[in-house]
Amino acid sequence: MSRIAYVNGQYRDLRDANVNVEDRGYQFADGVYEVCEVRGGRLVDFPRHMARLQRSLRELRIAEPMPLSALGIVMHEVVRRNRVTYGLVYLQITRGVARRDHAFPLNPVKPSVVITARALNYAKNQQTAASGIKVITVPENRWPRVDIKSVSLLPNVLAKQEAREKGAYEAWYVGTDGFVTEGASSNAWIVTGDGRVVTRSADHGILAGITRAVLMEVMAALQIKLEERPFTPAEAKQAAEAFVTSASQIVIPVVAIDGQAVGNGQPGGVAKRLREEFHRFSAFS
Amino acid sequence: MSRIAYVNGQYRDLRDANVNVEDRGYQFADGVYEVCEVRGGRLVDFPRHMARLQRSLRELRIAEPMPLSALGIVMHEVVRRNRVTYGLVYLQITRGVARRDHAFPLNPVKPSVVITARALNYAKNQQTAASGIKVITVPENRWPRVDIKSVSLLPNVLAKQEAREKGAYEAWYVGTDGFVTEGASSNAWIVTGDGRVVTRSADHGILAGITRAVLMEVMAALQIKLEERPFTPAEAKQAAEAFVTSASQIVIPVVAIDGQAVGNGQPGGVAKRLREEFHRFSAFS
Repeated sequence: MSRIAYVNGQYRDLRDANVNVEDRGYQFADGVYEVCEVRGGRLVDFPRHMARLQRSLRELRIAEPMPLSALGIVMHEVVRRNRVTYGLVYLQITRGVARRDHAFPLNPVKPSVVITARALNYAKNQQTAASGIKVITVPENRWPRVDIKSVSLLPNVLAKQEAREKGAYEAWYVGTDGFVTEGASSNAWIVTGDGRVVTRSADHGILAGITRAVLMEVMAALQIKLEERPFTPAEAKQAAEAFVTSASQIVIPVVAIDGQAVGNGQPGGVAKRLREEFHRFSAFS
Repeated sequence: MSRIAYVNGQYRDLRDANVNVEDRGYQFADGVYEVCEVRGGRLVDFPRHMARLQRSLRELRIAEPMPLSALGIVMHEVVRRNRVTYGLVYLQITRGVARRDHAFPLNPVKPSVVITARALNYAKNQQTAASGIKVITVPENRWPRVDIKSVSLLPNVLAKQEAREKGAYEAWYVGTDGFVTEGASSNAWIVTGDGRVVTRSADHGILAGITRAVLMEVMAALQIKLEERPFTPAEAKQAAEAFVTSASQIVIPVVAIDGQAVGNGQPGGVAKRLREEFHRFSAFS
């Protein structure tokens, strides 16, 4: 089945889903995005993703191209047209098309909206979670505004590529202060020997992950203790468990960091339990 | 006259010049670019721009989409079709179109090539140079790989917008060490009281500007003394002159920094002379 994308008011075959070469997303990375998990054809934690989108747009002073409720209707329609029951929906909004000039267009242009969706392989993702993943650490080299979910992702691309070439799945950024900030496309977590779950505060230096926020509610409900504080790679390597969270993969156990086994080198029980319980606490739209 | 763009093998009316929504340039800022000045219909310092392009591509491991000589032919053709005698030609190459995934596509895809050109208003640019421009200083907040001329330009967009809103034309980045790195779309220079021209070394922290490199040859020929070293905003504000260089505007005098006049608040003689002499030393292709 060919995939369908929504682009600026039209549903197109993905092969014909185009944006202008002077779209500022293409020339300046001047845009933002969101990715929602799709389960049973429904969007997971959609209102939170919309709230974060709204914040990203506001930070960059990109106008909302349509009411968020209308955006939600289109996202559901893209999911439906692609017959995605389990997978992802991707939304990108850029400042729009204008003659190339760094500063914002003097005559405001209409923001561009692109929405795509695709099925994921549930069995394969379950297998990845069951096996756990390896991560590497890399020096933090992104700009400080990573709290904005922008498409300025070239540093993340290079970090993920480096991870893959080293046989790993994710790269954890480490700041000059020696602490892990977050993964190139996920938030980073560890579990201490006495069962406390540790992750960095979202005050600055990381994206406020939606899965991260929901997981904190899951932990509260399950009476799992949480410590919001930074941790070093050294602490992570000695931790009982480690895991990553993202909208596309929820919770994935980390079994090795920089080639060193975490715990007994197998996915940890806390991460497994959080993954299993997560969707009991999600909102489905 | 409608503008013509070259996109992946075709010359298109700019309004119909499109790239796919899954082009990695659009979703990840995974691409590079060059801008050449056009004078008398010819490309200024084209071989140097191609050499830098080649380096940017190599650093990101993006394949050359076609021999550079062929790329040059297309760039000339875009200039010709747009009847640009004085203006710019813009070239962007991205990693290509692939299903969204941060790391490089496992099955290599063909890089995307976009070339546009447009006329600039010569009289207006001369007037800008005659009046001089104002700059502001902003904290350096870009990733360290600014030596790669990538389209990951969102920080630059925000800095240029801030400059405009403060009545200035350019923003100079200042590192945590207190020294100016470069402008958001230009290199930064000052002239000391005894006539020495100062600019930061291109070893790291800045893009190796083509105009910057040619200007150094101009200075050598004119026996103007050059010091390659960093300078602070404080030194710049006390300098005899200041100016910026870029391919699109060659040399433009700076008459104020953060609202404080440089020299007597008028364009300086060294900057004026360098602007006038520049094209005697340029290569025209």
